[in-house]
Amino acid sequence: MSVTVAVDAMGGDHGPAVTVPSSLAFLEETPGASVVLVGRREAIDPLLARSRSPAKDRIRVRDATEVVGMDEPPADALRRKKDSSMRVAINLVRDGEAHGCVSAGNTGALMGIARFVLKTLPGIDRPAIASQLPTKTGVVTMIDLGANVNCTADQLVQFAAMGSALVSAVEGIERPTVGLLNIGEEEIKGNDVVKETAERLRTSGLNFYGNVEGTDIFRGTTDVIVCDGFVGNVALKTSEGLAQMLYEFLKTEFTRGLLSKTAAAIAYPVLMRFKRRIDPRRLNGATLVGLKGVVVKSHGGADTLAFKHAVAKAHAEIAAGVLDRIAQRIAAMPAAAFAVPTADA
Amino acid sequence: MSVTVAVDAMGGDHGPAVTVPSSLAFLEETPGASVVLVGRREAIDPLLARSRSPAKDRIRVRDATEVVGMDEPPADALRRKKDSSMRVAINLVRDGEAHGCVSAGNTGALMGIARFVLKTLPGIDRPAIASQLPTKTGVVTMIDLGANVNCTADQLVQFAAMGSALVSAVEGIERPTVGLLNIGEEEIKGNDVVKETAERLRTSGLNFYGNVEGTDIFRGTTDVIVCDGFVGNVALKTSEGLAQMLYEFLKTEFTRGLLSKTAAAIAYPVLMRFKRRIDPRRLNGATLVGLKGVVVKSHGGADTLAFKHAVAKAHAEIAAGVLDRIAQRIAAMPAAAFAVPTADA
Repeated sequence: MSVTVAVDAMGGDHGPAVTVPSSLAFLEETPGASVVLVGRREAIDPLLARSRSPAKDRIRVRDATEVVGMDEPPADALRRKKDSSMRVAINLVRDGEAHGCVSAGNTGALMGIARFVLKTLPGIDRPAIASQLPTKTGVVTMIDLGANVNCTADQLVQFAAMGSALVSAVEGIERPTVGLLNIGEEEIKGNDVVKETAERLRTSGLNFYGNVEGTDIFRGTTDVIVCDGFVGNVALKTSEGLAQMLYEFLKTEFTRGLLSKTAAAIAYPVLMRFKRRIDPRRLNGATLVGLKGVVVKSHGGADTLAFKHAVAKAHAEIAAGVLDRIAQRIAAMPAAAFAVPTADA
Repeated sequence: MSVTVAVDAMGGDHGPAVTVPSSLAFLEETPGASVVLVGRREAIDPLLARSRSPAKDRIRVRDATEVVGMDEPPADALRRKKDSSMRVAINLVRDGEAHGCVSAGNTGALMGIARFVLKTLPGIDRPAIASQLPTKTGVVTMIDLGANVNCTADQLVQFAAMGSALVSAVEGIERPTVGLLNIGEEEIKGNDVVKETAERLRTSGLNFYGNVEGTDIFRGTTDVIVCDGFVGNVALKTSEGLAQMLYEFLKTEFTRGLLSKTAAAIAYPVLMRFKRRIDPRRLNGATLVGLKGVVVKSHGGADTLAFKHAVAKAHAEIAAGVLDRIAQRIAAMPAAAFAVPTADA
């Protein structure tokens, strides 16, 4: 199958200056794939004209006159901007002109438009955001990272099934282990929804590991970690903030005084290896899971390397048939996993 | 005022081997203070006898025959172990023989027993756990870190008032800024309880900064960050896990190959400065806020330096009159901060 990815060329902090070269770099690495760049032709064409990439003939441009602002209310973007680059890119997926799409734009707008245009897969109440985080031993996929802030046990079970299917398809892990994010401090161990979710996951047919705590995320205890979007988003943002602070502290210590500068010069290659190892650009790209179409959200501030990874992620998910895998996984779940437990009736 | 701190000598992974020398070190640094070591006399006395510290005469030992296990269900500890070192230490606070207490034992048991024995301050529904985290510019106090997993807006407002009073008393900040932990990704920005809490905090008389995100924790955006105990615990544990992973990666890179080992030797003093700067032992000690008594929980794995900081924290809170400050702050809040909003009626 020849995969076509629609790229919202205008999204993100840098727009076409990043999305155009990223798309070319992606195509050079991915023979047979093609890209539709969606956005203002006058902003895209000059960048393409300047390129000498042999991959140029696998790119075409689809005009879209509007752009969704990074801080624009999602409802406004959905209602008023029918010809935004984001919306047109998603329309291409709906219409079968592209197999999936990538945007570095406004997350809320992307989710809102994708949900409205593509609809959810059968058995899915609400789509969720899944992304990979680095661990001591590899990566972990966390779901949900912010799409749903008031989750029911039904939804969390669906997230578990979707996360499991996603990892299974893309990483080739037959039965990914699934952990449920919880806390260990409190007497009753977790809130009501999480407790109910754990009960249901035990009989869900998924490879349920049990409860995990915050410390397990970076330990790589499980392949998938399921949580409410509020909790997942806080965990993600807290990690970003801590990593940034520690990196700044490290830089400060290595540039303080003459001796430290000498130490830094000698330690520089080692620090660079460290930085490469935790480089978030490698893992850029969050998947909007549960929709009838592959939609990947890139970090808004992504540079060319990072955005290329997001496009490659969309390509990998399409090639692996993620949507079918999710649909199958949901269909294979026992009804009890979603039933209202009798204790609550 | 001469402050007396009751120390649960048996709590934590190391028991008296840590709590006894820590208490002595604390007393040496804190003229006029005294400590009651609570626990098995036969385990404590030999350690005291061996010490030549001049502070020995400000320590006395109170016998307690039982010990709460680190993994013991809190309900069992509360019901069955009436003569545990933890319980007797808390009893001393209730009976006015000590002004506050410190334990490195089981968090759930400590909270359960403290709540049962001491009761909550007027106007407080449930106590919460508050602790300081390091930031780019200093420290931030987060509340709640795991005591309450299903919080109402009323409780979150109380946490805000308690956190504000705590920081005000101990750090001498007149009107600490208070942030409400939320997420920015979703269209509707936060779950229902958080939205209601924000509304109430705006008219609470506290110095409410507004919503903050996970990234703001380590940025030091506000003096206090308020959240549900589930979310706070996940944020805390996630941070611990990430810091540990990054430190291990750094160590691995600096010990890989001959060149790196040379680099490490030269960079060693710089790395040590970095490590000191983020040393969690400096900030060891979480406060159980909202009780009629000062109760500080040390990390279970605390070493002598870390546990000493927890004892010093209890002392500082007692000396600053934290309990009165909290009671005053709660009493000064407008009734509307706790009223059920008419929109929900």
